[in-house]
Amino acid sequence: MLGEIGEQPVALLRLLEQRAELEAISSALARRAPGVVRLVGHGTSDNAASYGIYALGLLPGWTALRDSISLTVYYGASIDFGGSAVIALSQSGRTPDVVEYVTRARAGGALTIALTNEPESELGRAAELVLPLAAGPELAVAATKTYLNELAALALLAGGAVGRLHEVADGLRGVAALLADSLPNLEAAVSPVAAACAFVGRMFVIGRGLEYATAREIALKLTETCRVAAEPLTATDLAHGPLAALDPLFPVWAIASPDESLPAVVEAAARARSAGAALIASGSAAAEIEGASYSLPVPDAGDRLFAPLLSVVPGQLFAAALARVKGLDADRPERLTKVTLAR
Amino acid sequence: MLGEIGEQPVALLRLLEQRAELEAISSALARRAPGVVRLVGHGTSDNAASYGIYALGLLPGWTALRDSISLTVYYGASIDFGGSAVIALSQSGRTPDVVEYVTRARAGGALTIALTNEPESELGRAAELVLPLAAGPELAVAATKTYLNELAALALLAGGAVGRLHEVADGLRGVAALLADSLPNLEAAVSPVAAACAFVGRMFVIGRGLEYATAREIALKLTETCRVAAEPLTATDLAHGPLAALDPLFPVWAIASPDESLPAVVEAAARARSAGAALIASGSAAAEIEGASYSLPVPDAGDRLFAPLLSVVPGQLFAAALARVKGLDADRPERLTKVTLAR
Repeated sequence: MLGEIGEQPVALLRLLEQRAELEAISSALARRAPGVVRLVGHGTSDNAASYGIYALGLLPGWTALRDSISLTVYYGASIDFGGSAVIALSQSGRTPDVVEYVTRARAGGALTIALTNEPESELGRAAELVLPLAAGPELAVAATKTYLNELAALALLAGGAVGRLHEVADGLRGVAALLADSLPNLEAAVSPVAAACAFVGRMFVIGRGLEYATAREIALKLTETCRVAAEPLTATDLAHGPLAALDPLFPVWAIASPDESLPAVVEAAARARSAGAALIASGSAAAEIEGASYSLPVPDAGDRLFAPLLSVVPGQLFAAALARVKGLDADRPERLTKVTLAR
Repeated sequence: MLGEIGEQPVALLRLLEQRAELEAISSALARRAPGVVRLVGHGTSDNAASYGIYALGLLPGWTALRDSISLTVYYGASIDFGGSAVIALSQSGRTPDVVEYVTRARAGGALTIALTNEPESELGRAAELVLPLAAGPELAVAATKTYLNELAALALLAGGAVGRLHEVADGLRGVAALLADSLPNLEAAVSPVAAACAFVGRMFVIGRGLEYATAREIALKLTETCRVAAEPLTATDLAHGPLAALDPLFPVWAIASPDESLPAVVEAAARARSAGAALIASGSAAAEIEGASYSLPVPDAGDRLFAPLLSVVPGQLFAAALARVKGLDADRPERLTKVTLAR
């Protein structure tokens, strides 16, 4: 896992080499001008879909949703897929209900696009268009470089749909460089925080807007590799109930990036702090989180669209470090398999 | 809270008396034939929105989503609201970003509908059409009867949009009767389960499809009134990572209803059980969950659409009972307020 986290800058650049596919798929999306973009995936891929909602909402101004797979696949609802686009995300391309969803959506008239590391997979064959994620072989059960490349692919398609593919690609090249530069320092920085968190049993991870995806992905890494019950919440949802559960043994991780959602995150973190929770702040605006016990800042990506690609990395590194502190094998968590065939 | 749980059958019947509004709003929805229905709300209202996705998908076959409030309200994204409908849910009608979202969506051409207990509220004034939830004054911070009436209102509008308003209303009358009959037994049944769970610190609550809303709402009740870190997961998501965190001190609550999603829930519960987790099974198909330590079955609602209105009730009662066991005040959890004005 640690090795794959380190490969992320290179994996990101490899995705940018898929120029022909990126251009063809963005053009197809622009031609379709979908009334709605349906994102489907599980686990890490579903977390990336949370980011896709914002990338597609901010760039082409399209309505995107993490669609219900069960409505179509299990309940057989008569949903009108005409005029919509589907973006299906799966590292392996073998997630059964995602493949089945894409098959039905395509038969119903949706433009179907697969983002996968395995273009020759069932998912790759089921979809009309395939963008290889090009993350390279991912062996650790907990996905890291696949996640980053899924975010980047969604940003590229969202930008490409409005003729800004090259601009987004240039921005991502900058992200890869910033990430490569900062990885050694970040790896050193998470170590004392992990040591301090050895006995943490539960945690909330809060973010909002573009960074809600980051909150979800960091929480998932902690749950699967460190056996921490880490729940992601939007900054606002914290106040709608979960705040009552906090105490000094229940830390809160806040993702702070310098965009329009920052005041909500700062406000929610202050509420958590006054409930006695220790705060871990990350993101390039980590310094805005008052009273944080630990701070794991990342470089400013320069554009709010790119911030999530950097802010997730301290969470990935922290999960790997905490697993080591706890004597757990981050690469092979108990009971999990790399390819999940569960319904 | 316990009193308000008991009022639910009566509150449900009061909603059914809003016939003129129900007919007018369903007709307006049918005339609009929205390309997409945007559901917005926080906390309990957002959980009810999860149900709305299925009710609207199964009856009129419409695509509904829990829309991003921050994309419109904070980021100012240029989303095309024409051709869509908005259903905003808020007990108090005072949630600031929901009011702001509705104002912008209405200006952008959406058909806007408010479901609220307070028709004269800001939200009631901001929306074009208002359906009074008629749950009556809800004083406990943790919402219960508002949730049930929100589910019922969504089912009625979904049915009304395809000319089946009276049929859905009749079904809900049946639910109210079943609920009134079963409340005393359910209240007795949760008591020993709550006693056994006095020291539970974390829990997953799993459901799928129509019952994912129930999983979310039970988890929220436990978090806010009992300070349990209870995370809702779809049955499938459990296998995509969180399964690794389970152990005998980390119970799993499984919602089992006899619909097309049941096999996925049964399979996920078996996985949790083999990880050593104690299982609490609820729903009318609770008996299908093998190896459950505790079972809290409810009557069969006869139609999958109505099952969530019954299956949430053992969770509400359990939360009230567990709060009492722990010496917590379920009516006034620390740090929460009935009307949440947080961003």
